[in-house]
Amino acid sequence: MNRRPRILLINPNTTPGFTQRIQHIAAEYAAAGTIVEAVNPQQGPRAIESIYDELLSAPATLELVLQHAPHVDAFVIACYSDHPVIYAAREITTKPVVGIAEATMHMACMLGHKFSVVTTNRQWEPLLWDAVHHYGLAARCASVRSTGLPVLALEEKSEAETYALIHNIAQRAVEQDGADVICLGCAGMSGMDKRLTADLSAPVLDGVICALKFLEGMVHYGISTSKRLAYAKPEPKTLDNLPTIFATAYGNKAR
Amino acid sequence: MNRRPRILLINPNTTPGFTQRIQHIAAEYAAAGTIVEAVNPQQGPRAIESIYDELLSAPATLELVLQHAPHVDAFVIACYSDHPVIYAAREITTKPVVGIAEATMHMACMLGHKFSVVTTNRQWEPLLWDAVHHYGLAARCASVRSTGLPVLALEEKSEAETYALIHNIAQRAVEQDGADVICLGCAGMSGMDKRLTADLSAPVLDGVICALKFLEGMVHYGISTSKRLAYAKPEPKTLDNLPTIFATAYGNKAR
Amino acid sequence: MNRRPRILLINPNTTPGFTQRIQHIAAEYAAAGTIVEAVNPQQGPRAIESIYDELLSAPATLELVLQHAPHVDAFVIACYSDHPVIYAAREITTKPVVGIAEATMHMACMLGHKFSVVTTNRQWEPLLWDAVHHYGLAARCASVRSTGLPVLALEEKSEAETYALIHNIAQRAVEQDGADVICLGCAGMSGMDKRLTADLSAPVLDGVICALKFLEGMVHYGISTSKRLAYAKPEPKTLDNLPTIFATAYGNKAR
Amino acid sequence: MNRRPRILLINPNTTPGFTQRIQHIAAEYAAAGTIVEAVNPQQGPRAIESIYDELLSAPATLELVLQHAPHVDAFVIACYSDHPVIYAAREITTKPVVGIAEATMHMACMLGHKFSVVTTNRQWEPLLWDAVHHYGLAARCASVRSTGLPVLALEEKSEAETYALIHNIAQRAVEQDGADVICLGCAGMSGMDKRLTADLSAPVLDGVICALKFLEGMVHYGISTSKRLAYAKPEPKTLDNLPTIFATAYGNKAR
Amino acid sequence: MNRRPRILLINPNTTPGFTQRIQHIAAEYAAAGTIVEAVNPQQGPRAIESIYDELLSAPATLELVLQHAPHVDAFVIACYSDHPVIYAAREITTKPVVGIAEATMHMACMLGHKFSVVTTNRQWEPLLWDAVHHYGLAARCASVRSTGLPVLALEEKSEAETYALIHNIAQRAVEQDGADVICLGCAGMSGMDKRLTADLSAPVLDGVICALKFLEGMVHYGISTSKRLAYAKPEPKTLDNLPTIFATAYGNKAR
Amino acid sequence: MNRRPRILLINPNTTPGFTQRIQHIAAEYAAAGTIVEAVNPQQGPRAIESIYDELLSAPATLELVLQHAPHVDAFVIACYSDHPVIYAAREITTKPVVGIAEATMHMACMLGHKFSVVTTNRQWEPLLWDAVHHYGLAARCASVRSTGLPVLALEEKSEAETYALIHNIAQRAVEQDGADVICLGCAGMSGMDKRLTADLSAPVLDGVICALKFLEGMVHYGISTSKRLAYAKPEPKTLDNLPTIFATAYGNKAR
Repeated sequence: MNRRPRILLINPNTTPGFTQRIQHIAAEYAAAGTIVEAVNPQQGPRAIESIYDELLSAPATLELVLQHAPHVDAFVIACYSDHPVIYAAREITTKPVVGIAEATMHMACMLGHKFSVVTTNRQWEPLLWDAVHHYGLAARCASVRSTGLPVLALEEKSEAETYALIHNIAQRAVEQDGADVICLGCAGMSGMDKRLTADLSAPVLDGVICALKFLEGMVHYGISTSKRLAYAKPEPKTLDNLPTIFATAYGNKAR
Repeated sequence: MNRRPRILLINPNTTPGFTQRIQHIAAEYAAAGTIVEAVNPQQGPRAIESIYDELLSAPATLELVLQHAPHVDAFVIACYSDHPVIYAAREITTKPVVGIAEATMHMACMLGHKFSVVTTNRQWEPLLWDAVHHYGLAARCASVRSTGLPVLALEEKSEAETYALIHNIAQRAVEQDGADVICLGCAGMSGMDKRLTADLSAPVLDGVICALKFLEGMVHYGISTSKRLAYAKPEPKTLDNLPTIFATAYGNKAR
Repeated sequence: MNRRPRILLINPNTTPGFTQRIQHIAAEYAAAGTIVEAVNPQQGPRAIESIYDELLSAPATLELVLQHAPHVDAFVIACYSDHPVIYAAREITTKPVVGIAEATMHMACMLGHKFSVVTTNRQWEPLLWDAVHHYGLAARCASVRSTGLPVLALEEKSEAETYALIHNIAQRAVEQDGADVICLGCAGMSGMDKRLTADLSAPVLDGVICALKFLEGMVHYGISTSKRLAYAKPEPKTLDNLPTIFATAYGNKAR
Repeated sequence: MNRRPRILLINPNTTPGFTQRIQHIAAEYAAAGTIVEAVNPQQGPRAIESIYDELLSAPATLELVLQHAPHVDAFVIACYSDHPVIYAAREITTKPVVGIAEATMHMACMLGHKFSVVTTNRQWEPLLWDAVHHYGLAARCASVRSTGLPVLALEEKSEAETYALIHNIAQRAVEQDGADVICLGCAGMSGMDKRLTADLSAPVLDGVICALKFLEGMVHYGISTSKRLAYAKPEPKTLDNLPTIFATAYGNKAR
Repeated sequence: MNRRPRILLINPNTTPGFTQRIQHIAAEYAAAGTIVEAVNPQQGPRAIESIYDELLSAPATLELVLQHAPHVDAFVIACYSDHPVIYAAREITTKPVVGIAEATMHMACMLGHKFSVVTTNRQWEPLLWDAVHHYGLAARCASVRSTGLPVLALEEKSEAETYALIHNIAQRAVEQDGADVICLGCAGMSGMDKRLTADLSAPVLDGVICALKFLEGMVHYGISTSKRLAYAKPEPKTLDNLPTIFATAYGNKAR
Repeated sequence: MNRRPRILLINPNTTPGFTQRIQHIAAEYAAAGTIVEAVNPQQGPRAIESIYDELLSAPATLELVLQHAPHVDAFVIACYSDHPVIYAAREITTKPVVGIAEATMHMACMLGHKFSVVTTNRQWEPLLWDAVHHYGLAARCASVRSTGLPVLALEEKSEAETYALIHNIAQRAVEQDGADVICLGCAGMSGMDKRLTADLSAPVLDGVICALKFLEGMVHYGISTSKRLAYAKPEPKTLDNLPTIFATAYGNKAR
């Protein structure tokens, strides 16, 4: 049994400040023996708020997966969305990969009857409902509620204003929608979980911590992504005009 | 942050041999710092294979929850079913409670696209489908397959025969039903997970280990059952002709 | 064809006043030839408002089932919930068993397009939604609405206040949620159905009456619970430290 | 309380032999005090096996509803389908209306965990699945299986052959699909329910009897179709070139 | 490839003014080469607002289908509902048949994430939700909202009042329910699509145009209704007291 | 009304032979007045068979969307999958965008009761089921069946062998799964639709043609992607180390 997991947190956007923040949070909550490291790609958008942004962030993020796969035991994809990189990473490595959105939702299911997700701008509502449906958890989701402000606008407000805004939305989810648990649906909300938990008298979950704890558990147990069907290694094929590292994902049966 | 969780495993049937087995498994997989202990009630059925059996096991199991709640950090309910004691325990304590069936299913969702449950006699099939639906995970479940033998009959067979039977059923789940991950749906299958994983080339999950790792994560993170709505403490009321410990669950607002 | 059904109503809480009330209602609506009797256990909670309460009421209620099974034709489980005793009773007898919650909902489906359930305290909302899902009737349920008061608090109010409260909630279900039919989701509301039906211009259903009429129909027709798969008699097993009557449920193939 | 229900069975096809058969069955199972009568339209198809057939049978069947509504207490629509006349009849009368397909399915839900429908030609499979979905009962339906023969071909076979064919299909539903209860999905199967129940050791339901018992219960209880929303009386309007009786359905607010 | 489709629009109500209106709209949007014609039956209701109305309109509408089938390439059923004539027409012809409600909804699914339907009186809400479920599109439907006025009352208002009413309801669907696209759920709203699209900054769809474009595409492609299973020609049978044209639908294998 | 649509078909893989094939098919089925052009990116995988492949194809494909958006009226994304580029393209242009998988499925829903998808290797089964669920069409899908061979292996077989293999799988979908319509789930199957339709007596749909006809209809009608909520233009942000064209998608409100 492996009790010394090396866990890589990949922030798929290019903002180093966010990468440092999640590294800090993960270090604080890591179990004895766990080594955590956070990285971000050099190429792509500074924030991810659309499928377009996700796709622009994907190649450089996958490059990080391929580079680090031989040296780490598990991957956190630290973007609160159903980022397609999660599934591509499962296809191309044998190590477990957990996204921070799914981590909060599975955790919430074991702490309450229904959860709500609190997110930033309104466009995230359909995207996160799609995520909830994709995870098969629609029956457990009370609501997806947004603050109505984009991520970067949120960053521009004072901490007190931001906190008040998020607290207000989370409270409605609990009181009007019947949520037992709140999932913080944006990296910009990281670090507010404990205070909100106390103020709302309901568990409020940070995705980085949830994903970290799940991956520690998987590595301790010695289990990993199934390569049997859905996440089998992709069929080898020629890649045109892409860095050679991408071809290493396929193995050696090139066609 | 609490890095020294005391986790109580409650086997709701009265067979001490099974209690010892889960204690042994949990001890093997516990993180550094975790203290695990397994107990079982003195009153109730020797095995649980029906809702009738569940209900007969319930009062003495809840008594264990009430007795141990002040001294432990988390509870595993070690019966592969949607045992109603899981929910009652969430109502009457503030500590996290995880059942071994839900634990395997949530773990499976982060390792594959679909999971199957392998269980014992055929009557478990509707019961475990109900569990899957109750957890809201029907869209992720490829199949519930049974060996056709009751738990105790399974125990009477040689280990090789039992293994062959379970391997055969699990293989069909993978090859015919498209399961990426197998959940071992019976305590009698405990200890076969690693060998089956190797033979099937697909993750095969033991519920006690999954629940243990989830609870360690919750205690490390400092999160617990939401008492906000679904699992709020029940309204106080008079209990007729029951041991006085049961009244302690309600708090002091007696009516 | 049996046109003289003996139907036993089991109130699983220990409050004799409620038992008398349902006996009275059933007697009023019983068909010519039907014999109704209502009983309650001597052990357990005075009211049932949580899964914990359900489980404390279960053994003594099942004892009643086992005692009466040879002498009656059918059982009503008179608790407005998805009480697990309904299923255990189906496992251990060959007589039909109907719960009062499912009875109102199936009846409502033949009288309108959508139904709503009106219940007491808010914690019943998730419990009754779970019931609706378990019955497979979620697509027919417009809403579950609660008065926000616990059962026993409701009893303390004047009849006029209680009526006004329930009428108000039911009206919202009809006008805002699109309910065609209202299911009275608490025993404390028994006897209000006719007046509410008149005041709301919509059918309002009492569970005891619905269950009684369904069971009369089943006994007239000569049909009963299927023992084929889900409700087959449980496998025999040793019971530790329980009254001997519980062992009679398993039949003679003791292991 | 009305203990003398007058229940009209409407066979929407034009075959008097079938009308007599259902009259006979209903008379056999009617409660003391119930008056049953069966009728069929003079215009329309001899059998109903498609939506086209349903629509050709509709006007004359609705005419029967309008003619009899003042004199009867309840209507059975005796066609094993989701015949749209059921809903139109609910719109234009205040008396309860039950179809024989929905009657078997709601009855089955209180007798087992899953039901299957056994029908005639294969085209009925999608039609009856649509019915199951429309009733909101898909989660309770194990399968819809057909004999592969149209109704009238079935009538041409010897009774022994027909029985063997239906028994065989029903047995597969029980053994392979996990059905606890069988719904006989064609009038041509009427009268086989008791023998099949015995041979399969599982309840096998006749729709005419189920609908009769439900309607007796509704009339005893004094409840009827909700006129509140979905089945409100249609807005009055001019009808061109149709018998004047059809205009009586709208009431006097003609536009 | 057939680039000269002859498309018949059938208005199932008997109001010629509406027939002219849809003829006009279809002519405006028809592709080069397409011939459109609109007809209505001489027998039936002047407006369709209930299942009763649908059934009274059915025989004469099906007669139109049978009369025109040899001479046209495709049928629009121009009633905003899940009119059963759509399915009967698919059974009895080999030409494609599209209803205007399903046309708007499938179109909407390719233009946005969620659609809402705006309809007339409140009784249409359950009917159109049933339609949405029948099409299998419930997950894509944000809401069905009604103006609360019956079709004919709507016609009596000034155009400005009607527009304001519909605009108001559609705006709520977009702003409160999260609809990306609006489906105009009533013929009386025809011709308002372009103005609403501009005022709401969201696509607003007219069913006649959507159905026309889909059928042009089908005829161009050379594809038509599957006669393989669900819409196979009905089994031949005797029809009593109906015009002889109805028997031609069955083919020559009369029984 | 625009009757001269310029429709761009984007093949997201880098194999020019496939691009030529779809150009040829589209030209054959285009309406009078429609101008079709097919292109493919110069960077990315030669075939797309996994989420990894999708993500590697995304940036260069989106570059094509941005380059061509000012000059064309509509986009076909010609990859039989729920390729995330479909959604990103909807976010960054105002022109309608249709994927070939969704096109076949919506078309199938208007031609039959259930459809099946026939695809290549088995790993596509979970991916295409996910697509079906994402489109909200699970209730209409009879099955997703695969030939078990990867795309490129399929290309290496003789045409007769390939045809026989696909015919065989499609036949099982019709006969065993109850599919009325078959969707050809791979570009390598293009051109077989007419022959399969004849051999199976059931419509068999090519995605390029279906998407083309839908887009022609949208352009004729003058409707396009809703920019209201889900596909609103993404918030502007800095892009690091990416070609400048990608920044043009955001408009000028850079943060």
